[in-house]
Amino acid sequence: MRYQLYYWSGIQGRGEFVRLALEDAGADYLDVARERGDDAIMPFLQGEQGGALPFAPPFLKAGRTVIAQTPAILLYLAPRLKLVPAGTPIQLHAHQLQLTIADLVAEVHDTHHPISSALYYEDQRVAAKRRAEDFRQHRLPKYLGYFEDVLVRSGGMHTLSRHSYVDLSLFQIMSGLDYAFPHAMRRLRRKLPQLCALAGKVAERPRIATYLASPRRLAFNEDGIFRHYPELDATR
Amino acid sequence: MRYQLYYWSGIQGRGEFVRLALEDAGADYLDVARERGDDAIMPFLQGEQGGALPFAPPFLKAGRTVIAQTPAILLYLAPRLKLVPAGTPIQLHAHQLQLTIADLVAEVHDTHHPISSALYYEDQRVAAKRRAEDFRQHRLPKYLGYFEDVLVRSGGMHTLSRHSYVDLSLFQIMSGLDYAFPHAMRRLRRKLPQLCALAGKVAERPRIATYLASPRRLAFNEDGIFRHYPELDATR
Repeated sequence: MRYQLYYWSGIQGRGEFVRLALEDAGADYLDVARERGDDAIMPFLQGEQGGALPFAPPFLKAGRTVIAQTPAILLYLAPRLKLVPAGTPIQLHAHQLQLTIADLVAEVHDTHHPISSALYYEDQRVAAKRRAEDFRQHRLPKYLGYFEDVLVRSGGMHTLSRHSYVDLSLFQIMSGLDYAFPHAMRRLRRKLPQLCALAGKVAERPRIATYLASPRRLAFNEDGIFRHYPELDATR
Repeated sequence: MRYQLYYWSGIQGRGEFVRLALEDAGADYLDVARERGDDAIMPFLQGEQGGALPFAPPFLKAGRTVIAQTPAILLYLAPRLKLVPAGTPIQLHAHQLQLTIADLVAEVHDTHHPISSALYYEDQRVAAKRRAEDFRQHRLPKYLGYFEDVLVRSGGMHTLSRHSYVDLSLFQIMSGLDYAFPHAMRRLRRKLPQLCALAGKVAERPRIATYLASPRRLAFNEDGIFRHYPELDATR
């Protein structure tokens, strides 16, 4: 099976959680818009293709099946890529964690776009500064503290009983947050020893290390979800 | 199996999507916090109970399995309650739609809390007015237009090939939006004939009609996700 991933070609964004799973598993996949341009995405969004109608990228084409929504894509892929242990309760547990990661990602997005995705950041800076401050003080410690607790509860090595796509996603979260909020993250890190250790271990996985060093890994940038605007980070 | 649903006792909120599925199926369930108070939720959030650690309510206890995140709860329940057709592609399709509903719900929440969930609405009214305007003009028509397209694509009677939990969730979305944004919804309705017809048909399902008329159905209120603040709705 050659998977076809459809996601905007210029950003890591939500597609990166899927890319990391495909890369870690050494799966055969085509990153369609990177090869053919973002226009390749549009016929799906406009209902000109068969299968489920996606609301937005990323979506995955697996044979004739079209799956949208990042956590749903990973729910489908993970057992096939051996990136989650067997069994319904543990796969539901993994999925619940991925859904909470998705919620965090949406809140990260809203730190720079608290009013409208249709407006530029510059047109919502005042609200962004307030929202980002709340995010750094309340939401970020709450989310990361939660994932730290999940790791402690499972014994610390992995989120689940062994390596899974959730570990890969938490690596991506920590990478993105370090890029967007370096000062805030420096303060938080001492309270997150398991999460920091996990992110380090994921980065050293051979296929992930190869991927991160390759041109396939896009750099974080200010068109994506994790954006570095110094005024939205903590001071010092 | 007697399911135990844990959700805040004073609001419909995200728990209502689960309640509607349980009620429509005539399932045996206990709405724990409605019976025992919201304190019954805390031991789970504080990690004092076994099973997966929830980040927030709602969560469902099914035997010893704890499942958090509304779409994950419905993913688990629906085949057991016969609220989704059999087969992986269609169940993924249903789940993808429910995830998009969850995204819409989060955006509805942020119309009245664009800055911080820790602040009162009154302390973020200026930003709320801007965000709500963007929501009414861009996001709401985009989301509802998408679900209308999904219904047209499937033949109009149901979101999937037959009745499913997604239809129940879309009923809840339409009900909540009619409550929160009556003027904006009045303008939009003419473009959403399938969605309006579906919501009407769901309300007439015998068990749903019984539930809606019972004291188990909480009223919409200004502590929940769908809140009616006239200044956030369209004029006239």
